[in-house]
Amino acid sequence: MISASRRSHIMISAMSRLLVLYNKPADPAAFDRYYSETHIPLARKIPGLRSYVVSAGGVGLVAGGSPVHLIAELEFDSMAELQNAMASPEGQAAAADVGNFADGGVTILAFDTKSV
Amino acid sequence: MISASRRSHIMISAMSRLLVLYNKPADPAAFDRYYSETHIPLARKIPGLRSYVVSAGGVGLVAGGSPVHLIAELEFDSMAELQNAMASPEGQAAAADVGNFADGGVTILAFDTKSV
Repeated sequence: MISASRRSHIMISAMSRLLVLYNKPADPAAFDRYYSETHIPLARKIPGLRSYVVSAGGVGLVAGGSPVHLIAELEFDSMAELQNAMASPEGQAAAADVGNFADGGVTILAFDTKSV
Repeated sequence: MISASRRSHIMISAMSRLLVLYNKPADPAAFDRYYSETHIPLARKIPGLRSYVVSAGGVGLVAGGSPVHLIAELEFDSMAELQNAMASPEGQAAAADVGNFADGGVTILAFDTKSV
Protein backbone atom coordinates (compact mmCIF):
# COMPACT_ATOMS: atom_id res chain seq x y z
CA MET A 1 0.00 0.00 0.00
CA ILE A 2 1.63 3.26 -1.01
CA SER A 3 0.46 6.68 0.08
CA ALA A 4 -0.37 9.51 -2.29
CA SER A 5 2.79 11.26 -1.13
CA ARG A 6 4.97 8.27 -1.94
CA ARG A 7 3.22 7.83 -5.27
CA SER A 8 4.17 11.39 -6.25
CA HIS A 9 7.81 10.52 -5.66
CA ILE A 10 7.47 7.50 -7.91
CA MET A 11 6.08 9.56 -10.77
CA ILE A 12 8.84 12.12 -10.46
CA SER A 13 11.57 9.53 -10.06
CA ALA A 14 10.98 7.61 -13.28
CA MET A 15 13.21 9.96 -15.21
CA SER A 16 16.83 10.31 -16.28
CA ARG A 17 19.56 11.91 -14.23
CA LEU A 18 22.93 13.47 -14.87
CA LEU A 19 24.97 13.08 -11.67
CA VAL A 20 28.02 15.33 -11.33
CA LEU A 21 30.55 14.65 -8.55
CA TYR A 22 33.17 17.36 -8.09
CA ASN A 23 36.38 16.37 -6.31
CA LYS A 24 37.92 18.73 -3.76
CA PRO A 25 39.19 21.83 -5.62
CA ALA A 26 42.40 23.71 -4.81
CA ASP A 27 40.44 26.72 -3.52
CA PRO A 28 37.01 25.66 -2.22
CA ALA A 29 35.81 29.23 -1.59
CA ALA A 30 36.69 30.32 -5.14
CA PHE A 31 35.05 27.15 -6.50
CA ASP A 32 31.85 27.83 -4.55
CA ARG A 33 31.70 31.44 -5.69
CA TYR A 34 32.25 30.55 -9.35
CA TYR A 35 29.81 27.65 -9.20
CA SER A 36 27.09 29.77 -7.68
CA GLU A 37 27.60 32.97 -9.68
CA THR A 38 28.58 31.60 -13.09
CA HIS A 39 27.95 27.88 -13.49
CA ILE A 40 24.43 27.61 -12.04
CA PRO A 41 23.07 30.39 -14.30
CA LEU A 42 24.65 28.66 -17.33
CA ALA A 43 23.38 25.19 -16.41
CA ARG A 44 19.87 26.46 -15.68
CA LYS A 45 19.60 27.43 -19.36
CA ILE A 46 19.89 23.80 -20.48
CA PRO A 47 16.68 22.94 -22.37
CA GLY A 48 14.45 20.21 -20.98
CA LEU A 49 15.92 20.48 -17.47
CA ARG A 50 13.21 19.34 -15.03
CA SER A 51 15.06 19.78 -11.78
CA TYR A 52 18.54 20.82 -10.69
CA VAL A 53 19.61 19.93 -7.19
CA VAL A 54 22.99 20.55 -5.56
CA SER A 55 24.51 19.50 -2.27
CA ALA A 56 24.33 22.14 0.43
CA GLY A 57 26.79 22.48 3.29
CA GLY A 58 29.29 19.84 2.26
CA VAL A 59 29.28 16.17 1.32
CA GLY A 60 29.97 13.53 3.95
CA LEU A 61 31.94 10.43 2.92
CA VAL A 62 30.19 7.57 4.72
CA ALA A 63 32.12 4.70 3.09
CA GLY A 64 34.75 4.04 0.39
CA GLY A 65 35.70 6.38 -2.42
CA SER A 66 37.46 9.71 -1.98
CA PRO A 67 36.29 13.11 -0.71
CA VAL A 68 33.71 14.91 -2.85
CA HIS A 69 33.30 18.66 -2.64
CA LEU A 70 29.98 19.20 -4.36
CA ILE A 71 27.30 17.07 -6.01
CA ALA A 72 24.85 18.24 -8.66
CA GLU A 73 21.95 16.28 -10.09
CA LEU A 74 20.12 17.38 -13.20
CA GLU A 75 16.92 15.59 -14.07
CA PHE A 76 15.30 15.15 -17.50
CA ASP A 77 12.19 13.37 -18.72
CA SER A 78 14.13 10.64 -20.52
CA MET A 79 17.63 9.66 -21.65
CA ALA A 80 16.84 11.01 -25.13
CA GLU A 81 15.91 14.38 -23.60
CA LEU A 82 19.10 14.32 -21.50
CA GLN A 83 21.24 13.58 -24.55
CA ASN A 84 19.53 16.23 -26.66
CA ALA A 85 19.94 18.71 -23.81
CA MET A 86 23.66 18.07 -23.44
CA ALA A 87 24.16 18.29 -27.21
CA SER A 88 22.38 21.67 -27.38
CA PRO A 89 24.40 24.92 -27.43
CA GLU A 90 23.35 25.59 -23.81
CA GLY A 91 24.38 22.07 -22.75
CA GLN A 92 27.72 22.40 -24.54
CA ALA A 93 28.33 25.79 -22.91
CA ALA A 94 27.64 24.41 -19.43
CA ALA A 95 29.86 21.36 -20.08
CA ALA A 96 32.68 23.55 -21.40
CA ASP A 97 32.41 25.80 -18.36
CA VAL A 98 33.23 22.88 -16.02
CA GLY A 99 36.85 23.12 -17.15
CA ASN A 100 36.94 26.70 -15.83
CA PHE A 101 36.53 25.78 -12.16
CA ALA A 102 36.67 21.98 -11.56
CA ASP A 103 40.43 21.81 -11.03
CA GLY A 104 40.12 18.84 -8.65
CA GLY A 105 38.51 16.70 -11.33
CA VAL A 106 34.93 15.63 -11.92
CA THR A 107 32.98 12.43 -12.49
CA ILE A 108 29.79 12.65 -14.56
CA LEU A 109 27.33 9.77 -14.72
CA ALA A 110 24.06 9.40 -16.65
CA PHE A 111 21.30 6.90 -15.86
CA ASP A 112 17.61 6.22 -16.00
CA THR A 113 15.94 5.98 -12.62
CA LYS A 114 13.22 3.85 -11.16
CA SER A 115 11.67 4.08 -7.73
CA VAL A 116 11.73 0.87 -5.70
CA MET B 1 8.69 32.37 -12.96
CA ILE B 2 8.44 28.76 -11.88
CA SER B 3 5.58 26.47 -12.75
CA ALA B 4 3.62 24.47 -10.20
CA SER B 5 5.36 21.36 -11.47
CA ARG B 6 8.81 22.83 -10.93
CA ARG B 7 7.79 24.10 -7.51
CA SER B 8 6.89 20.54 -6.46
CA HIS B 9 10.42 19.44 -7.32
CA ILE B 10 11.84 22.21 -5.16
CA MET B 11 9.80 21.13 -2.15
CA ILE B 12 10.84 17.52 -2.55
CA SER B 13 14.49 18.40 -3.19
CA ALA B 14 15.18 20.33 0.03
CA MET B 15 15.96 17.14 1.87
CA SER B 16 18.92 14.91 2.68
CA ARG B 17 20.24 12.16 0.47
CA LEU B 18 22.31 9.05 0.89
CA LEU B 19 23.99 8.37 -2.46
CA VAL B 20 25.37 4.86 -2.98
CA LEU B 21 27.65 4.17 -5.96
CA TYR B 22 28.42 0.48 -6.55
CA ASN B 23 31.52 -0.32 -8.58
CA LYS B 24 31.39 -3.08 -11.17
CA PRO B 25 30.97 -6.43 -9.38
CA ALA B 26 32.63 -9.71 -10.39
CA ASP B 27 29.30 -11.20 -11.46
CA PRO B 28 26.85 -8.47 -12.51
CA ALA B 29 23.92 -10.85 -12.98
CA ALA B 30 24.35 -12.31 -9.48
CA PHE B 31 24.72 -8.80 -8.07
CA ASP B 32 21.52 -7.62 -9.75
CA ARG B 33 19.57 -10.65 -8.54
CA TYR B 34 20.77 -10.27 -4.95
CA TYR B 35 20.21 -6.51 -4.97
CA SER B 36 16.70 -6.84 -6.24
CA GLU B 37 15.59 -9.88 -4.23
CA THR B 38 17.39 -9.31 -0.93
CA HIS B 39 18.84 -5.82 -0.55
CA ILE B 40 15.91 -3.71 -1.73
CA PRO B 41 13.46 -5.40 0.68
CA LEU B 42 15.93 -4.82 3.55
CA ALA B 43 16.60 -1.17 2.64
CA ARG B 44 12.91 -0.39 2.21
CA LYS B 45 12.44 -1.16 5.91
CA ILE B 46 14.68 1.77 6.94
CA PRO B 47 12.57 4.14 9.05
CA GLY B 48 12.01 7.67 7.74
CA LEU B 49 12.86 6.72 4.15
CA ARG B 50 10.99 9.18 1.90
CA SER B 51 12.10 7.90 -1.48
CA TYR B 52 14.39 5.19 -2.79
CA VAL B 53 15.51 5.47 -6.39
CA VAL B 54 17.91 3.19 -8.25
CA SER B 55 19.53 3.35 -11.66
CA ALA B 56 17.77 1.27 -14.28
CA GLY B 57 19.47 -0.26 -17.31
CA GLY B 58 23.05 0.65 -16.51
CA VAL B 59 25.06 3.75 -15.67
CA GLY B 60 26.84 5.69 -18.41
CA LEU B 61 30.21 7.25 -17.58
CA VAL B 62 30.11 10.64 -19.31
CA ALA B 63 33.37 12.04 -17.89
CA GLY B 64 36.14 11.16 -15.40
CA GLY B 65 35.95 8.60 -12.63
CA SER B 66 35.62 4.86 -13.10
CA PRO B 67 32.75 2.63 -14.21
CA VAL B 68 29.77 2.39 -11.87
CA HIS B 69 27.43 -0.57 -11.97
CA LEU B 70 24.47 0.69 -9.99
CA ILE B 71 23.44 3.87 -8.20
CA ALA B 72 20.96 4.11 -5.35
CA GLU B 73 19.62 7.28 -3.76
CA LEU B 74 17.73 7.24 -0.49
CA GLU B 75 16.02 10.42 0.58
CA PHE B 76 15.14 11.58 4.10
CA ASP B 77 13.53 14.72 5.53
CA SER B 78 16.77 15.97 7.11
CA MET B 79 20.33 14.94 7.97
CA ALA B 80 19.20 14.15 11.52
CA GLU B 81 16.53 11.80 10.12
CA LEU B 82 19.10 10.20 7.80
CA GLN B 83 21.54 9.64 10.67
CA ASN B 84 18.84 8.24 12.96
CA ALA B 85 17.67 5.98 10.14
CA MET B 86 21.13 4.57 9.48
CA ALA B 87 21.72 4.04 13.22
CA SER B 88 18.45 2.11 13.58
CA PRO B 89 18.44 -1.72 13.55
CA GLU B 90 16.93 -1.66 10.04
CA GLY B 91 19.58 0.79 8.82
CA GLN B 92 22.35 -1.27 10.36
CA ALA B 93 20.96 -4.44 8.78
CA ALA B 94 20.85 -2.83 5.32
CA ALA B 95 24.37 -1.42 5.73
CA ALA B 96 25.73 -4.78 6.89
CA ASP B 97 24.09 -6.50 3.91
CA VAL B 98 26.13 -4.38 1.46
CA GLY B 99 29.17 -6.54 2.33
CA ASN B 100 27.27 -9.61 1.09
CA PHE B 101 27.13 -8.53 -2.56
CA ALA B 102 29.19 -5.35 -3.25
CA ASP B 103 32.43 -7.19 -4.06
CA GLY B 104 33.56 -4.45 -6.47
CA GLY B 105 33.52 -1.84 -3.72
CA VAL B 106 31.11 0.94 -2.91
CA THR B 107 31.18 4.68 -2.25
CA ILE B 108 28.52 6.12 0.06
CA LEU B 109 27.97 9.88 0.34
CA ALA B 110 25.53 11.86 2.49
CA PHE B 111 24.46 15.45 1.86
CA ASP B 112 21.70 17.98 2.27
CA THR B 113 20.17 19.13 -1.00
CA LYS B 114 18.86 22.40 -2.30
CA SER B 115 17.17 23.11 -5.59
CA VAL B 116 18.76 25.85 -7.67
